[in-house]
Amino acid sequence: MSNLYLLVIAMAILALLYGLYAIRSILAAPAGTERMQEIGRAIQEGAGAYLKRQYTTIAVVGVVVCALLGLRLGVHAAVGFAIGAFLSGVTGFIGMHVSVRANVRTAEAARTQGLAAAMGIGFKSGAVTGMLVVGLGLLGVTGYYMYMRSIVDPSTAAGVRHILESLVALSFGASLISIFARLGGGIFTKGADVGGDLVGKVEAGIPEDDPRNPATIADNVGDNVGDCAGMAADLFETYAVTIVATMLLGGIFFTGAAQETLMVFPLLVGGVCIIGSVIGTFFVKLGASNNVMGALYKGFIATAIISGILIAGLIATLIGFGTSFTTSSGLTFTGFNLFVCSLAGLGMTGLLIWITEYYTGTDYRPVKSIALASTTGHGTNVIQGLAVSMEATALPVLVISATIIITYLSAGLFGIAVAATTMLALAGIVVALDAFGPVTDNAGGIAEMADLPADVRVTTDALDAVGNTTKAVTKGYAIGSAGLAALVLFAAYTEDLVHYFPTLHVTFSLQNPYVMIGLFIGGLLPYSFGGMSMMAVGRAGGAVVREVRRQFKEIPGIMEGTTKPDYAACVDLLTKAAIKEMIIPSLLPVLAPIVVYFAVNAFAGQTAAFSALGAMLLGTIVTGLFVAISMTAGGGAWDNAKKYIEDGNYGGKGSEAHKAAVTGDTVGDPYKDTSGPAVNPLIKITNIVAILLLAFVA
Amino acid sequence: MSNLYLLVIAMAILALLYGLYAIRSILAAPAGTERMQEIGRAIQEGAGAYLKRQYTTIAVVGVVVCALLGLRLGVHAAVGFAIGAFLSGVTGFIGMHVSVRANVRTAEAARTQGLAAAMGIGFKSGAVTGMLVVGLGLLGVTGYYMYMRSIVDPSTAAGVRHILESLVALSFGASLISIFARLGGGIFTKGADVGGDLVGKVEAGIPEDDPRNPATIADNVGDNVGDCAGMAADLFETYAVTIVATMLLGGIFFTGAAQETLMVFPLLVGGVCIIGSVIGTFFVKLGASNNVMGALYKGFIATAIISGILIAGLIATLIGFGTSFTTSSGLTFTGFNLFVCSLAGLGMTGLLIWITEYYTGTDYRPVKSIALASTTGHGTNVIQGLAVSMEATALPVLVISATIIITYLSAGLFGIAVAATTMLALAGIVVALDAFGPVTDNAGGIAEMADLPADVRVTTDALDAVGNTTKAVTKGYAIGSAGLAALVLFAAYTEDLVHYFPTLHVTFSLQNPYVMIGLFIGGLLPYSFGGMSMMAVGRAGGAVVREVRRQFKEIPGIMEGTTKPDYAACVDLLTKAAIKEMIIPSLLPVLAPIVVYFAVNAFAGQTAAFSALGAMLLGTIVTGLFVAISMTAGGGAWDNAKKYIEDGNYGGKGSEAHKAAVTGDTVGDPYKDTSGPAVNPLIKITNIVAILLLAFVA
Repeated sequence: MSNLYLLVIAMAILALLYGLYAIRSILAAPAGTERMQEIGRAIQEGAGAYLKRQYTTIAVVGVVVCALLGLRLGVHAAVGFAIGAFLSGVTGFIGMHVSVRANVRTAEAARTQGLAAAMGIGFKSGAVTGMLVVGLGLLGVTGYYMYMRSIVDPSTAAGVRHILESLVALSFGASLISIFARLGGGIFTKGADVGGDLVGKVEAGIPEDDPRNPATIADNVGDNVGDCAGMAADLFETYAVTIVATMLLGGIFFTGAAQETLMVFPLLVGGVCIIGSVIGTFFVKLGASNNVMGALYKGFIATAIISGILIAGLIATLIGFGTSFTTSSGLTFTGFNLFVCSLAGLGMTGLLIWITEYYTGTDYRPVKSIALASTTGHGTNVIQGLAVSMEATALPVLVISATIIITYLSAGLFGIAVAATTMLALAGIVVALDAFGPVTDNAGGIAEMADLPADVRVTTDALDAVGNTTKAVTKGYAIGSAGLAALVLFAAYTEDLVHYFPTLHVTFSLQNPYVMIGLFIGGLLPYSFGGMSMMAVGRAGGAVVREVRRQFKEIPGIMEGTTKPDYAACVDLLTKAAIKEMIIPSLLPVLAPIVVYFAVNAFAGQTAAFSALGAMLLGTIVTGLFVAISMTAGGGAWDNAKKYIEDGNYGGKGSEAHKAAVTGDTVGDPYKDTSGPAVNPLIKITNIVAILLLAFVA
Repeated sequence: MSNLYLLVIAMAILALLYGLYAIRSILAAPAGTERMQEIGRAIQEGAGAYLKRQYTTIAVVGVVVCALLGLRLGVHAAVGFAIGAFLSGVTGFIGMHVSVRANVRTAEAARTQGLAAAMGIGFKSGAVTGMLVVGLGLLGVTGYYMYMRSIVDPSTAAGVRHILESLVALSFGASLISIFARLGGGIFTKGADVGGDLVGKVEAGIPEDDPRNPATIADNVGDNVGDCAGMAADLFETYAVTIVATMLLGGIFFTGAAQETLMVFPLLVGGVCIIGSVIGTFFVKLGASNNVMGALYKGFIATAIISGILIAGLIATLIGFGTSFTTSSGLTFTGFNLFVCSLAGLGMTGLLIWITEYYTGTDYRPVKSIALASTTGHGTNVIQGLAVSMEATALPVLVISATIIITYLSAGLFGIAVAATTMLALAGIVVALDAFGPVTDNAGGIAEMADLPADVRVTTDALDAVGNTTKAVTKGYAIGSAGLAALVLFAAYTEDLVHYFPTLHVTFSLQNPYVMIGLFIGGLLPYSFGGMSMMAVGRAGGAVVREVRRQFKEIPGIMEGTTKPDYAACVDLLTKAAIKEMIIPSLLPVLAPIVVYFAVNAFAGQTAAFSALGAMLLGTIVTGLFVAISMTAGGGAWDNAKKYIEDGNYGGKGSEAHKAAVTGDTVGDPYKDTSGPAVNPLIKITNIVAILLLAFVA
């Protein structure tokens, strides 16, 4: 068996080696003119300074939480937490580090070699982040699991429980960092974007990324710290939590040899999908038709097919298709059933991508309808965008529901967990498609600021439009997988409840009013969080507007291009704003389960409190799913409706329709890049805190 | 006992007599100048024509449903359905009939006598609608209940069940009509408002209600068919459903004398609260401080206190504070416990009103923050408004949760039902406060169109701003009560399930994946419905924009005021659009439970299907609560943020901030007056259809 662990470690290292290779090949590319490099350095400095400050602040919270965990749950939980937190931070940091170097090189490739070369560098940069997510995620979980097995006897129930607790603490570390990173980065990037657009495009009438706009550098910094580093931390969290949750169910539902097999199974799925993803990256090649989206899809489809085949091989050799397992509650399923669940996970990923593209791509009805609505004004643009965002929840939710039923009928709750794990195992390639976006966005900004020929911008714009869709795709994927993972975590919660409190008879029937209020209060979290984070972006954006207006007024010569605006002032302002604003909303999912438990406990006793707490976990996922999908899809659609008009439809740039579309895009900014995606870690943290709370209280 | 029924009937008739008195006193007031009367007639004609067409269309659907019910559940269900549908229609029709006559008289009172007199007529007109809702609601339910008791033996379980089925059919009739009326009216009014504002205020730069705007008459017609008739149908539905649901629980949980007592109890609560409401209307008097909101609150507070006292008297004489009851599941509570539940219902109503005023009133942080955000552009206005709308869900949900716990601990599920009934028993006065809004809004429009002196408009504007808040208040109240009523209906569903399918063992545990997907799919309904209805308003609004632009272009002299625009064209266009657009979204809650039941049944069997269907009911209320509260509160806040700026803040009318605020107001229009409020009947219909489906399938 221990050879298998080493195999998983080897596959994780493969991902990291691929990352190293990609980094070297990016850095070998030419970095462009002196002016481009100068702009690139300004972005690098801003992003580096922000991330340093963000992680320093998070570290303070992290140390406190780590100490609390250590005091109550022992040193292994504390160490696990620290590992999760550290690796999450490293993923974001390195990913950002690479993307701020890839941006100029992408612009340079667009300038000197054209679309294919530019896409190549952008995609490679994204792939670095993607491989870091899966490589470090798998390495951390597997390594710590191996270590814990070597010092704790895994053949006793208490030993397994202790190992699992340490892994849950690891995933908590990853989650806690990720919500701060998602939110802080999200506030920074969208504060810059909203503020810069409002005063630049709408008031001053200068184009996006115009060097005269004092918020441009901040906008580019934001792409890196939000859409790249924040997203990477988020996906790292999703990856780690899902694998740990599946192992948790494996540890709880089975005993003996089956237990060890089914606990290592998710790790191996993660491992073979790394192989699939690495191979898949080589399929990303621009064909003769110059279809960027098609090229990216080729990489994804290759990955999915290869991964599916490798998983089949894995099950055939490790488990056997005909081998049957029986859970502690008496459910029996075979290796073949597990394969069906894996395929369902792959299928769900594909369907979610396809649906997201429909709702956010410029070729389909939703985006076109928003563009059309822009012709009758700002108000109808926003109304149509909101309507599309609400409509966009339907198909994903039906797909998720169907996956739940198929996998549950195949292998019970463990089957749902396997589907979720398989989905997340593709994170390497999916994140690569996503992190590609901010790099090309930056490249466009640099092209504009460095005054490169117009056709360079055309090239980067083509890449950026695809980036808008792939960004939305990842978010749909992350939140969709969260829909499955939350069920798994809820199952872990109920099993842990029986383990820690065997004498309590806690029910989760909908007829129980504590379950009902738990659903309501859980449902409230994404709404409150959404409200808070939108306001934070609004405030940050408003501050940028005032700062930019001030610079236009007080620094003569900006608009004439004779004086450079004070870019650093905007970066600095946003750094302070984002750090300040991220704290309270991020603590909401940590504190809410604790408050609900103790409040209901004081009022109606422990049984009621555990019912309410459990229901709260599901309430959060029920509304969270809708809030997150509607926000991310709606935001992507607004953005691309603007791009659709800029492509010359309904009057093109500068028309009244375009102004209305810019308003919609501005509204969509915090929707898709701040509030919406941060719902994903919010759901997970609420669940993990509840699980840890059981151990705390017990 | 039968004397008690007659007493209830008498109190229902008291409400109708008050309505008659109020109508006479309104019609006795002077109707203004010839020009005002001419405008008034145009509004009357438009509203009458629209409603006639709307109800004719609904009648087609109604006849089909009625026939289906008759075929499967017998003639009594069909007759019940017809009564509910007919009375709902009558309430809306008469309410609209009065408000289109009160509007000119309110304007005339503002012109000749000032604020107090104008408020008096506006409020009286609202009170007519309010008293019709409770009077006809109570009369219909009690009358049909009496009739059914006289022809079916109520001492047998089967007899009681048959009576209850007929009452459920009655409430279904009311609900089905109300969703069409809410939605059709909502699309009409907001299509006119959005379209008129966008092209009038934003493009042409003419003030609201300017007679040169071809959409003005349509806008005023919309207030009457949407905010008045649609709202009345909605509240009639809420009132009838809640009382019937409480009777249903009384019939299910108890037997013998206790059963009859606890089934007549909700009717008597409705009755005594009519007395409270009638007396309360006389407390609505403008004080020396000219505080309109304060005057309305005085009426509400008086009603609540008097009603509380009367309920105490009712319990003392009918039940006895010390008398104890035991439900079929063994829970025991006393008359005093029921009184506590009633007080909790009154308290919850008061708190919801207070919270709604905070979020939508011009004196508090939320509205001011939206106004401030308008100074940095359209985008930040919308972002802040959306953020406020999400934040606004928190306190109501916590209040609802607390009420659930308090009443459940007092008297179990029946306690929750009693609290809901007591809340709704105040509908007479609450609807009066609400229906006051469209009348004053119309009065302002008429003042503008008839070119009355500016101070008339100032008077009506002051009333209208309060109307925005009271409109939001009613919606918060209706959806809050729906939160309780849905629990009651869910309890009725589970009890009916046991009754009709005694051998099935259906569970509603959250660990059951069918429950989980039920929650997801139920959660989807408000989102899909919201998306569809927002799009419908967007389309209707866009059509108005194009029509108005056409008239400005093709009819010379409109802008100079020398030629009258073609008002009727806009009314006609909207009538057609609203009727067409209302059908499909309205059928969603009717068809969804049926589809879910049969789909899951085909796939996983009947037990799973009933689990999914039950969970779907709660999923609808979980997301529905958030969607409805956020939309209605957010919309009200946007509207009043615009008013706040128009009052001279941040540059006042015509400033850039004002333009941004108009955009927010436009977005808020379908939020608060179309999609948001229609979620309330949507929730109820889904529940009632599920309950009827049980009887169908059995």
